[in-house]
Amino acid sequence: MLSKSQIKHIQALRKKKDRKEHQQFVIEGRKIVHELLDSDWDVRQVYCSKSYALKHEPPAESEVIEDFLFEKISSQSNPEGILAIVSMYAHKLPALESIRGIALDRIQDPGNLGSIIRIADWYNIKHIICSLDSVDCYNSKTLQASMGSILRVQVHYTRLEDIAEQTSIYVADMKGQDYRDIKPLYRGLLLIGNEAQGVGSWLEKKEVTKITIPRQGQAESLNAAIACGILSAQLFG
Amino acid sequence: MLSKSQIKHIQALRKKKDRKEHQQFVIEGRKIVHELLDSDWDVRQVYCSKSYALKHEPPAESEVIEDFLFEKISSQSNPEGILAIVSMYAHKLPALESIRGIALDRIQDPGNLGSIIRIADWYNIKHIICSLDSVDCYNSKTLQASMGSILRVQVHYTRLEDIAEQTSIYVADMKGQDYRDIKPLYRGLLLIGNEAQGVGSWLEKKEVTKITIPRQGQAESLNAAIACGILSAQLFG
Repeated sequence: MLSKSQIKHIQALRKKKDRKEHQQFVIEGRKIVHELLDSDWDVRQVYCSKSYALKHEPPAESEVIEDFLFEKISSQSNPEGILAIVSMYAHKLPALESIRGIALDRIQDPGNLGSIIRIADWYNIKHIICSLDSVDCYNSKTLQASMGSILRVQVHYTRLEDIAEQTSIYVADMKGQDYRDIKPLYRGLLLIGNEAQGVGSWLEKKEVTKITIPRQGQAESLNAAIACGILSAQLFG
Repeated sequence: MLSKSQIKHIQALRKKKDRKEHQQFVIEGRKIVHELLDSDWDVRQVYCSKSYALKHEPPAESEVIEDFLFEKISSQSNPEGILAIVSMYAHKLPALESIRGIALDRIQDPGNLGSIIRIADWYNIKHIICSLDSVDCYNSKTLQASMGSILRVQVHYTRLEDIAEQTSIYVADMKGQDYRDIKPLYRGLLLIGNEAQGVGSWLEKKEVTKITIPRQGQAESLNAAIACGILSAQLFG
């Protein structure tokens, strides 16, 4: 039985503050929920709508609820009819001397972060290190865009200023070396800055390699996730 | 004076059917509206909110309206306060024997199409050829994601089946040649398929080159716009 207070709790998890307080998040969709149940993530509860249960076999652990109740707890406009409440995983920041990954400075668009998590998973990158003011990786739009890759890529939040000296940094910049001249990385971080402003001024004092995707046309910039994809293909492909 | 019927007309342009009927679309944002006014596109009307006019000099051609009226005609949740109604440009399909561009088969996500238009503009690709059932390039989310590149890239809608024989086609596929072995294209089309289903079965009968972005990790696929970016960097970079 889904109580009123449980509905309120699930709805509250749409907000970063509440996710952080409860150390839980909500994830929706058939494929990802089954992947979660097969993983070592701590799935607290699974809910299915009655319509979903008529079409698919609901997982053994799930509670089947009325469609109108499911619509209340879902944050999607066309919900698939299955969602899970999951405990956050307290990923430990890896040893920086040997890390090979992606760093993000104040990425704001949840869809961009989701696409970047998916890129990381494609190229077998295990770690994404975000500045503290980057968008939350447990945002529903991020989870949706990551297409399940969130289960295999560890997203960390920390002060990038503090880690910049402990590893080589390759930063996407309008003025830098042609990225195609950079050899595939065995270690180091590919750093992508904010969608509008690029990387913060903290970077100026650091020794980094600036790399550029040469432009042939007139677009002012590429979308941050697209730039991350093109650079990842070179650095991690 | 903004009449009730004009408000209705502008709101109706949010729908593809009405855009097609009136051959007009709405575009929002300071930068793009100024770019439009400097271009040879036919700008029918520009509206600014009073708040906008207090902060920025409104274009000479614009009508300044009350904020609450602007909010009615804007399709954005945080509108900048300036929008233009623009006549569609009847782009003529170029000669296919010599075309160098991107083809899209049933791309559905407006943000993806916008990002791909921006990629095309970055790589000086002048033509994107979409299947008739692809998402509309004058969708407000597409225009926003294209960041003004819509003014420099011609998006055509046609039956891809009919043009496939008239040019070389390089199609993104899970099973194909390593894309890094393909030389930059002087002519030909990079073809990207639907986000979930890839390219339709019509392609099976055609002679095309299948190309693949080798995967190192476990993601099932890359986002369609990300794949387009990585492949464009190789084929058009």
